[in-house]
Amino acid sequence: MPAAPRPAPAPRVGVLGLGLIGGSLLRRLAGYDGAHGAGWDADPAILAQASAAGLGVAGGVDELVATCDVLVLAVPLPAVEPVLDEIAPRTGTGFAYAGPLLTDVTSVKAAVLALAAQRELPLVGGHPMAGTAESGFAASDAALLDRATWALCVEDGTDLPSWLAVARLVTGLGCAVVPITADAHDAAVARVSQLPHLLAAALAAGADDPLARALAAGSFRDGTRVAATRTELTAAMCAGNAVAVGAALDEALDRLGRVRALLRDGADLRPWFEQGRSVRSQLDAPRSHARRRLPTADLAPAYLRASLRELGARGGRITDVSVDGILTCAG
Amino acid sequence: MPAAPRPAPAPRVGVLGLGLIGGSLLRRLAGYDGAHGAGWDADPAILAQASAAGLGVAGGVDELVATCDVLVLAVPLPAVEPVLDEIAPRTGTGFAYAGPLLTDVTSVKAAVLALAAQRELPLVGGHPMAGTAESGFAASDAALLDRATWALCVEDGTDLPSWLAVARLVTGLGCAVVPITADAHDAAVARVSQLPHLLAAALAAGADDPLARALAAGSFRDGTRVAATRTELTAAMCAGNAVAVGAALDEALDRLGRVRALLRDGADLRPWFEQGRSVRSQLDAPRSHARRRLPTADLAPAYLRASLRELGARGGRITDVSVDGILTCAG
Repeated sequence: MPAAPRPAPAPRVGVLGLGLIGGSLLRRLAGYDGAHGAGWDADPAILAQASAAGLGVAGGVDELVATCDVLVLAVPLPAVEPVLDEIAPRTGTGFAYAGPLLTDVTSVKAAVLALAAQRELPLVGGHPMAGTAESGFAASDAALLDRATWALCVEDGTDLPSWLAVARLVTGLGCAVVPITADAHDAAVARVSQLPHLLAAALAAGADDPLARALAAGSFRDGTRVAATRTELTAAMCAGNAVAVGAALDEALDRLGRVRALLRDGADLRPWFEQGRSVRSQLDAPRSHARRRLPTADLAPAYLRASLRELGARGGRITDVSVDGILTCAG
Repeated sequence: MPAAPRPAPAPRVGVLGLGLIGGSLLRRLAGYDGAHGAGWDADPAILAQASAAGLGVAGGVDELVATCDVLVLAVPLPAVEPVLDEIAPRTGTGFAYAGPLLTDVTSVKAAVLALAAQRELPLVGGHPMAGTAESGFAASDAALLDRATWALCVEDGTDLPSWLAVARLVTGLGCAVVPITADAHDAAVARVSQLPHLLAAALAAGADDPLARALAAGSFRDGTRVAATRTELTAAMCAGNAVAVGAALDEALDRLGRVRALLRDGADLRPWFEQGRSVRSQLDAPRSHARRRLPTADLAPAYLRASLRELGARGGRITDVSVDGILTCAG
């Protein structure tokens, strides 16, 4: 197995879709010696803005696909399927695949991988854990991805050299890669990304009178910040991961039902609150910075997959991928 | 009715309890020409810290009560009852009341007013909407009260000259007074202060594996910030307002149950999210800065009470109280 990442050390990266994440990624690529970036967006106004910002833009999807080594799909979830349909005939599929490395930045992974698999497109699923309540190219910022955690899916069918090449690109941009299966990703983000949006919206909706808003302080402001997100985005993000989000919501409803009963009974609430406090305190606890090097060149694919998944499952991350496939892992 | 606030323009303010709020208040009084502050705390170590910080401290509760014009009870909710029992014999009660103006800074109001009424102590209920996830004198900071919103209870039995004197002190410290009944306060803070703590704890408790925490980004971090609060404080705050908190939680459970059904049915989630988004957007909307002056000297008590409550109910606030009882109102 050739472990040296392809493509060559300075890949040409195409970014398809220049919203918040795609725009931020293209801006970041512009300041990065290790790759050349070009973008495209279906909205001519956004293309003009990107061009005016000094960013490289392609003349169309055809040109973008034909001239890049790595193609990053950065469109909203509902647009992934039509975009894959547009790309497939331009790349060949399956054994005949002759297109660029494919990856994406969508917030749900199993659904996207399934769409790619249906079309025999070898997509490495990715998800940078970065965002703001704002959206669109106008809000894009290279700094949004500073030290961001970037999930990359390790499935049984993932081509490992492709995975390593994408991981090398991501770590080169200053982000940390968390290797993970799509299912584990979707279950985790349901709990730490989509559930926060549901709870924030429910909390915000309760303050529907001016007095309550006049008394709202930091706890309400923080707890509802993401409720300002465009509803098209939150709705698509939750609907695209509906099964895992439903399970996470059921867990939360169960927890809240228990504290409702405690309140009714006048029981001690401290043990209930302690569960959340102890988990929250671990979020700010110093993370292990123990680093180890993992040379991948001679590893059997099954062993490498298992090692990567095990690293992600314990909260570890990859901070560097050398040109000859040596991973630097932390945590 | 004498509308000029008593006590004299430079009241001596006693702060009983030097935790986060009491300590911050005493620090703020130290930088305020309009009052003299002295504090006391049952913990000798905290008294020593306050003294070392250059703040005035009393030799004991007796001395504090005997030498102040306004006594601010700044003890945690469970300590309010024993503190009132300690104060009552030193002040006389009811018609014979001869103590300082009494006010408090506890996060629930009906329960505190009931405890004071049982002892015939004429307490003006107060609640500055300020806090952090930290607690104790060590975290106290005069800046915590910068432009804070400060609820002050207008009950049928509230002595209005006392209320105006406390409002003058509070606005003099740079805070804005929201006049409100205890019941309306408790219902509102259940929704904007206690419910955020319940949802934050439920959200935090779900991220009980390292992978989920590794993927946690801003939405989870913001949504769980207050879950780090000491559980003694959150538990007491919710238990002390159990009926209103239960009602607010029931509303949230109902909203979340509806979105659970929408997820199960594959229905459009946007209208559900839109309820929260529209309310949240009003939180950051520019507030009315229309100001008007309300001279209180010649108003009938019932009319003044109604005017104050109506101001609070529409989200308005009082930003200044002149020495002759003229209120500057905003919103």
